[in-house]
Amino acid sequence: MSTARRDTYTPDSLLAVAVTVFNERGYDGTSMEHLSQAAGISKSSIYHHVTGKEELLRRAVSRALDGLFAVLDEPGAVQGRAIDQVGYVTRRTVEVLMAELPYVTLLLRVRGNTRTERWALERRREFDQRIADLMKAAAADGDLRSDVDIRLATRLLFGMVNSLVEWYRPHPEGAPVDSTVVETVVRMAFDGLRT
Amino acid sequence: MSTARRDTYTPDSLLAVAVTVFNERGYDGTSMEHLSQAAGISKSSIYHHVTGKEELLRRAVSRALDGLFAVLDEPGAVQGRAIDQVGYVTRRTVEVLMAELPYVTLLLRVRGNTRTERWALERRREFDQRIADLMKAAAADGDLRSDVDIRLATRLLFGMVNSLVEWYRPHPEGAPVDSTVVETVVRMAFDGLRT
Repeated sequence: MSTARRDTYTPDSLLAVAVTVFNERGYDGTSMEHLSQAAGISKSSIYHHVTGKEELLRRAVSRALDGLFAVLDEPGAVQGRAIDQVGYVTRRTVEVLMAELPYVTLLLRVRGNTRTERWALERRREFDQRIADLMKAAAADGDLRSDVDIRLATRLLFGMVNSLVEWYRPHPEGAPVDSTVVETVVRMAFDGLRT
Repeated sequence: MSTARRDTYTPDSLLAVAVTVFNERGYDGTSMEHLSQAAGISKSSIYHHVTGKEELLRRAVSRALDGLFAVLDEPGAVQGRAIDQVGYVTRRTVEVLMAELPYVTLLLRVRGNTRTERWALERRREFDQRIADLMKAAAADGDLRSDVDIRLATRLLFGMVNSLVEWYRPHPEGAPVDSTVVETVVRMAFDGLRT
């Protein structure tokens, strides 16, 4: 498809367009033609930036994964009691998810049909394992209730956190502010809703 | 595609095949040809059962919605304190999700491109509203903590519940039994993980 627009994309701005299209159509359902139309530049202009759609996918999920893994090295995630580390990582993961919403959304929808997708799934499992280890340490300290299966609780905790990609939208009118969302996740998961 | 198999499908068994394909390929990405191949019968045999793929979608999401809405009329959902009703509905929703896993999975992935999908989304919103009303009643009774936004807590609670479609598989070796999963959801949501 011929287009009028001059190619003024940076790697980041082209990636943002691609991620929007991937999230709308699904990665499998997106062709270079779709990306070309959404960006308003020719396919050959896109090939000037990247080798193809799989490179865009890799960059996009890398951005999400880098944000998530960086949390695990922050002081709050490695110092103090394990239970506080788990709380800190939960809080910060929600913040990264909000800040990088389209990238994390794409990461969470990856299926495993290509090498890049399988790599992303592998990295996700690594992240989940790091959290499960922290949860186990908190349980060993006696700070998590002993009548729940820790692996299951970890899944449910991150099921709750990851559900944000389905309903969270930045700053819609009348919605709770971001810090309220973050605090509510942590309160609910660790202290429960009941008075 | 010509096929050897005789058409011995019942409405339910054909629906089960269709739902599997919808969940694998996405509803939009599924053609009557795909359904014909998966069922091993001709397209015209499928048309003998249904008017097209949208009817299969409607039947499938109806099955999920009927299961979920039925919970709201059970005695445990309408008698006693609101907090106990919320707990009951949470527990039973998890059970329905496990029992009707492929159907609820499909329901939760509906996007809104067709009339049937928009209808399903509308019914989902109705269900969410019924839960939010129960949660509000529990808060008014003073049984839910006052420092959380009830609408937000409802979303997080069902975000956690609905996450089961991503990771729950019936009876894999070494996994917690279903009743443990149900109890863990309720404990975590209402009493929290912390000791």
